[in-house]
Amino acid sequence: MNNYKLTIQYDGGRYKGWQRLGNGENTIQGKIESVLSEMLGREIEIIGSSRTDAGVHAFEQIANFKIKENIPELEIRNYLNRYLPQDISIKEVTIESDRFHARYNSKSKTYIYKIWNEDFTNPFMRKYSMHIEEKLDVNKMKEAAKYFLGEHDFTAFSNAKSKKKTMVREIYSIDFEKKDGFIQIRISGNGFLYNMVRKIVGTLIEVGAGRLFADNIPKVIELKDRAKVTNLAEPGGLYLEKIEF
Amino acid sequence: MNNYKLTIQYDGGRYKGWQRLGNGENTIQGKIESVLSEMLGREIEIIGSSRTDAGVHAFEQIANFKIKENIPELEIRNYLNRYLPQDISIKEVTIESDRFHARYNSKSKTYIYKIWNEDFTNPFMRKYSMHIEEKLDVNKMKEAAKYFLGEHDFTAFSNAKSKKKTMVREIYSIDFEKKDGFIQIRISGNGFLYNMVRKIVGTLIEVGAGRLFADNIPKVIELKDRAKVTNLAEPGGLYLEKIEF
Repeated sequence: MNNYKLTIQYDGGRYKGWQRLGNGENTIQGKIESVLSEMLGREIEIIGSSRTDAGVHAFEQIANFKIKENIPELEIRNYLNRYLPQDISIKEVTIESDRFHARYNSKSKTYIYKIWNEDFTNPFMRKYSMHIEEKLDVNKMKEAAKYFLGEHDFTAFSNAKSKKKTMVREIYSIDFEKKDGFIQIRISGNGFLYNMVRKIVGTLIEVGAGRLFADNIPKVIELKDRAKVTNLAEPGGLYLEKIEF
Repeated sequence: MNNYKLTIQYDGGRYKGWQRLGNGENTIQGKIESVLSEMLGREIEIIGSSRTDAGVHAFEQIANFKIKENIPELEIRNYLNRYLPQDISIKEVTIESDRFHARYNSKSKTYIYKIWNEDFTNPFMRKYSMHIEEKLDVNKMKEAAKYFLGEHDFTAFSNAKSKKKTMVREIYSIDFEKKDGFIQIRISGNGFLYNMVRKIVGTLIEVGAGRLFADNIPKVIELKDRAKVTNLAEPGGLYLEKIEF
């Protein structure tokens, strides 16, 4: 068996997220599987590393699949890039050891969130960032971000649909960059619950706008009450940046 | 009379260029005039600095119009931004001296051209850059660019529809930046003929791809033969960056 690893970039704007749902649903996993199945003449299933939400983008999503055929990596890459829509791109195809598993072997995931913080629309980034007109105080956001670092039960920042065994996740770092009208937030951790990044970013925005104090964050985490976290940042500003194994 | 100056940013992707054509044609000038006319209750005409082609973008286009009313600049800006489509944005509105004229007073114009030079599609920039898979030799392109500098008759790099009195234009600079998979070309001059930037960039691409020698450029300019310049770079990679007065 050959274990192929795909490095995938996509504009998630017109998709219902990564994960294949029913037949005919427009998902990124579904699109890639359908081209691979066409290529190999039978149903192929791929394992994705992160189940990005509807509308969320990826600079680097990772997936893998095992087949008995020996097909050169470049042939798979070229076939996929020829038949996939232009908003999904295969950057790289490699063959990994048999034990490589895109979902279970990941050690850290990094997401980027882009906020356009000017009082006029950015015509080029309107689908690739969240537009917030009121000036956000990045220093306050940095202060608030510190409380999310480390291991916490993130129930308050999850979606009620989450059916994970544990809501405990570890966040390694949250960094901010303010440049050319954008505030960019980079967040790394060992894993994220459904909606978790967008709810953390939404909460940081509340702090930056002065509607929530940074030192309220520990209590919000502690209470594990989803009703206390109401600001879900838009999907279009979110990018899966990198997965480390 | 008050002479209002608009600083405009737009994604030209779905427009037939800057200049208003017949009624109902989708142009950027037409969209802005229609909102201003609505605001002021009569037909308003604006003067644009550059007539960008269909599909070409602008980081900073300049326009002006004169009215007798005293309306605060911010009120005009906010009204326009409220009613314009999201792909056209008014960055700034100021009042200038009576003599300011967006078209006749411009001293230099700068355009940027973005080439995505990787062997896979860029999902985010597919409408905002030209994708060229074959590796371009930027050093050869730089060498070729030197021949365009200074004052020349650019008939060979114009469109047959051009009805200008003179085809002589002066190019001040052509700079290259290679970064993160992109080749970005920045070109400044006192003015450009219809299609001229895209034909110069198309010719530089031919040189970078090894299909034309840099030292052929002087002859191509000299011959003034449009048939010798066949590579018209795609509109989606071109941005009007800045106009100086």
